[in-house]
Amino acid sequence: MTNIKGPKSFIAKSRIIPASFTIGFLGAGQLAKMSAIEAYRMGIQVAAYTDRKSHEPMHYMSPRITTGNFSDVKAMTEFAQQCDVLTLENEFIDSQVLNQVQKNSGTPIYPSPESFSKIENKIIEKQSFEKSGIPVTPYKQIARSNDLKVFGRQYGWPYVLKSSKGGYDGYGSETVSNLDEAVKIFNKLGGSNGQDILAEAFINFTHELAVQVAYNGREYLVYECCETVQSNHICVAVVTPARVPDSIKKLAQKRALEAMKVLGTRGIVAFEFFYTPTGNILLNESAPRPHNSGHYSIEGCVTSQFENHIRAILGLKLGSSKLTQPACVMINLLGTQNRKAQIEFNEQLMSEPNGHLHIYGKFESKIGRKMGHYTLLGDNIDSVYKRARSLTENIQI
Amino acid sequence: MTNIKGPKSFIAKSRIIPASFTIGFLGAGQLAKMSAIEAYRMGIQVAAYTDRKSHEPMHYMSPRITTGNFSDVKAMTEFAQQCDVLTLENEFIDSQVLNQVQKNSGTPIYPSPESFSKIENKIIEKQSFEKSGIPVTPYKQIARSNDLKVFGRQYGWPYVLKSSKGGYDGYGSETVSNLDEAVKIFNKLGGSNGQDILAEAFINFTHELAVQVAYNGREYLVYECCETVQSNHICVAVVTPARVPDSIKKLAQKRALEAMKVLGTRGIVAFEFFYTPTGNILLNESAPRPHNSGHYSIEGCVTSQFENHIRAILGLKLGSSKLTQPACVMINLLGTQNRKAQIEFNEQLMSEPNGHLHIYGKFESKIGRKMGHYTLLGDNIDSVYKRARSLTENIQI
Repeated sequence: MTNIKGPKSFIAKSRIIPASFTIGFLGAGQLAKMSAIEAYRMGIQVAAYTDRKSHEPMHYMSPRITTGNFSDVKAMTEFAQQCDVLTLENEFIDSQVLNQVQKNSGTPIYPSPESFSKIENKIIEKQSFEKSGIPVTPYKQIARSNDLKVFGRQYGWPYVLKSSKGGYDGYGSETVSNLDEAVKIFNKLGGSNGQDILAEAFINFTHELAVQVAYNGREYLVYECCETVQSNHICVAVVTPARVPDSIKKLAQKRALEAMKVLGTRGIVAFEFFYTPTGNILLNESAPRPHNSGHYSIEGCVTSQFENHIRAILGLKLGSSKLTQPACVMINLLGTQNRKAQIEFNEQLMSEPNGHLHIYGKFESKIGRKMGHYTLLGDNIDSVYKRARSLTENIQI
Repeated sequence: MTNIKGPKSFIAKSRIIPASFTIGFLGAGQLAKMSAIEAYRMGIQVAAYTDRKSHEPMHYMSPRITTGNFSDVKAMTEFAQQCDVLTLENEFIDSQVLNQVQKNSGTPIYPSPESFSKIENKIIEKQSFEKSGIPVTPYKQIARSNDLKVFGRQYGWPYVLKSSKGGYDGYGSETVSNLDEAVKIFNKLGGSNGQDILAEAFINFTHELAVQVAYNGREYLVYECCETVQSNHICVAVVTPARVPDSIKKLAQKRALEAMKVLGTRGIVAFEFFYTPTGNILLNESAPRPHNSGHYSIEGCVTSQFENHIRAILGLKLGSSKLTQPACVMINLLGTQNRKAQIEFNEQLMSEPNGHLHIYGKFESKIGRKMGHYTLLGDNIDSVYKRARSLTENIQI
């Protein structure tokens, strides 16, 4: 790693930003977009490399968009050479590829390819955290269909089958109630074609929690413990602080910090936990990037997850993660129709004091697709949640 | 104006934003940049038309930059046809040109060419407001050098000479102490070559105040009265709320609203006032756009001047201008050296809770050039001001 150039010189000093500095994003969606806004605020340039031909949010926000494949080391290296540092907005790029691009270009990548290799595969991810004593949901790699029966016998039915790479928002993950279903889903997920499949015990949790942690190479910063509300495997709302006992929030924050130390990378990582009726906190998943569960932080915290991600990968001092108001609710605005995107909202939404509308600028709306979000701040979590839901329930998008 | 297309349909409904909607900026500097960030947050596209060949902040933030002359009606019309609405970031474009572009393209421009014609020339500006009973600084148009003597006799020496168009940050404006100086400056400003020159009485003010007002075609919204601190004719800091009696702040807000009604345009306008030792409030200047005196509102108010400018020109409901904390200080970061821009700051600046750094991304730093700003929030205006100055005094940029 001695030949890595880029932000090294000012990262060392951590207090100089030259005007021509460029962050390269692998990916051009809403996470890159919201991060780019923070980079722009600091006078930093942004470029993006995307594998999609259709227009994504970043296409309208930078003149420097490159289209290519995420397995094309040569093209990605050329892109990296035009940037001072690279970062990611998803987990779908192979850590070997990232490693090669970093080596060939001399441009550092955060999250580091090394840390990425610890979590890019869900089986390896669980092993990485488990080894460090962080409780995870019981799991087993399923090599053949006979393992399905064994897992069911050991942990009971139903349980969850997941492909070990590439899943998000419920895709690549299904709950199975009996052996017949399990075999069917195992085959559907590609298990019989060599795809790594993971079985996870079904956790009867009462809350799903999430904690963001940032690391800039020198200091860690932990965000408030928030609560993600899911419907059909998609996060529909985030409630901050989580409506669980303080001791549980503190425990989740402690575990998140430990897990971040396992990864040891610059950047921001979101850690998702199950809180069970028996008082356990189990690490479910990690996302080595700004994450939907942290969108509330744009207005809800002094320094958002996006700004601290930018600071972290640049090696700059991190900003306070303190809440700006006692209660914060973020509602995901999911596509309500399949059409060319357009948002139709009521006027209350726009004039609500302490309400903030974010639209991602995607061109195509699809039912259930994340098209934007709405954040409402206030004093009381229950009334803020109620009000935020009522303001957003009639949005057409 | 019946043939004006663009955002008409959704402005009428004021609750629909289509994904392909584009705001065109005439100008590509930091005001366009900070406004564009708010447009991006709402999923709106941004294009810019600039008369500068060198790179400006917007060059890095949009793939849609057009370079041309601000008197080239044809080129500006073509640009306008690619946009749904146009807006401005300076006062240097002729209202006749804007009117022609609006007519030819069918794309509405806010501030409207009509309102613009009332203030583009400092003499006409003063007449417009004076006619509506808003007290302005005593002034007179200087047609020939003999008028210089007459004005001095009437209002005393020193007084201020200004060219009626194109001045900003002290450029095009000088204080003269006697007739010899006055004649010299009159000639220097082009008075003997047909340039319109304005004489203004020297106001012995104790504070300079500013108030932003937004109008979306249906409702007005007035911001807090802030105080601008000047050094060598350049604003170095903005203190909000202004450190003057409440009755004075209210009066300034009232006058600003009246002045906005004189202009009657959608958009945001900043009004600057002198507060005199005898308790008078005199309107000094207006700026029909987001203005330096309102940068504090990005973090200091629930809805920033930039966001409400975007909302206003789109005809959307305006957001609350309420202060987020009792005290807010904005420090302008002026170039300290002539060099390729790079910012060198201390780590306290980045980790200060409630402190927010904005860098505009200009490539060339010049001594005194506005390169960025720093906003600090808190409870007590005096300690926040002191702390903000101490944090920023050693920045090299």
